[in-house]
Amino acid sequence: MDSSSDHSPPSSLHSPGDVQNVKFCQWCGGPTKHEIPEGEERLRAICTSCGKITYQNPKMVVGCLIEHDNKVLLCKRKIEPSYGLWTLPAGYLEIGESAMEGAIRETREEANADVEVISPFAQLDIPLIGQTYIIFLARLKKPHFSPGPESSECLLFSLNEIPFSSLSFSSMVVTLSLYVEDMKAGGKPKFHYGTINKRPGTSASDIHAYTLDHHMQS
Amino acid sequence: MDSSSDHSPPSSLHSPGDVQNVKFCQWCGGPTKHEIPEGEERLRAICTSCGKITYQNPKMVVGCLIEHDNKVLLCKRKIEPSYGLWTLPAGYLEIGESAMEGAIRETREEANADVEVISPFAQLDIPLIGQTYIIFLARLKKPHFSPGPESSECLLFSLNEIPFSSLSFSSMVVTLSLYVEDMKAGGKPKFHYGTINKRPGTSASDIHAYTLDHHMQS
Repeated sequence: MDSSSDHSPPSSLHSPGDVQNVKFCQWCGGPTKHEIPEGEERLRAICTSCGKITYQNPKMVVGCLIEHDNKVLLCKRKIEPSYGLWTLPAGYLEIGESAMEGAIRETREEANADVEVISPFAQLDIPLIGQTYIIFLARLKKPHFSPGPESSECLLFSLNEIPFSSLSFSSMVVTLSLYVEDMKAGGKPKFHYGTINKRPGTSASDIHAYTLDHHMQS
Repeated sequence: MDSSSDHSPPSSLHSPGDVQNVKFCQWCGGPTKHEIPEGEERLRAICTSCGKITYQNPKMVVGCLIEHDNKVLLCKRKIEPSYGLWTLPAGYLEIGESAMEGAIRETREEANADVEVISPFAQLDIPLIGQTYIIFLARLKKPHFSPGPESSECLLFSLNEIPFSSLSFSSMVVTLSLYVEDMKAGGKPKFHYGTINKRPGTSASDIHAYTLDHHMQS
């Protein structure tokens, strides 16, 4: 649900790591102080009443790259951010599900499609915003799909029709670029790992202003 | 750091997803209610004062499988859980770092070793406890290592010496088993994805009571 890959506007870009925003303890309601605990190296929010530490951790966004008749399935976003732009079905992983199950669930929610996962395809970290994208290759169990509540359209695109200038997020540009490269190289898609680093000084909404660092494939 | 892969005792096994434990809003300190928000499907902790939702998400544990002279580097844990048992250097990913950077940092902290990552090796989800292990193959930049504050020993093990009955977590049993299989098959290690499902009714401390589901490799 809500989910999908919040590349937020610049003002909140650092919020996932902004420990200063944690002002109260979620367990006892006590006010927090912000200090580096003994034996650690990072600033944490520590409850002044019960002493518990509220850790903040990166979030996983899970999604599917669906292959069908030499095309891939994209959804046009009907929600912010990136309203009106194209994305793979993807969203935040929930506790209690595997990444694969989460990717299948998001595809059902956003594209009303039942898919079978074929293989892991990519892990793309975006350290600046505390997100990791985990993308699986998948295929439709039945050739049926339609826009879910968060999508205005779902369409199949052949590789040379992919709307690279109207994609919603850098992660989608990278994922689809790597996929097109793998397919043009004639082989079976590989597994890709990499880090998406936004170029300093560029806008969060500029989906092409990044470098893909430490790209490795297996 | 604190870190390493908390397979907690059975009583807290479900805590990562236990939204009921979130009793106060971390932003405004207001009391929470526990309801399914409109348009969602899961119970959430919603602030009765400011309305913000506290989402709980799975955590990533990142680590390195270090190859050196046809051996692998393991650390004996000097902390709970699994005090005295062997593990790969691994711990929670922090916001602001990539999985690769986190795995390198944990290796520096736990084994005083500088490593270079070679390739992604495994993603292992453990839905029951809301954790995902991301393991990289790595090599020592210099042949130096020694126990960090959380380790009592760091040793190199040849493949037929790996202490499979004295490993700290199921995730380590799976990772090292897959690695040994890949190496015995003679090839270059592959990338593995899978879900570790604890067998119902077994103790959390029984590291062999699991099934590896949806195992895929590329």
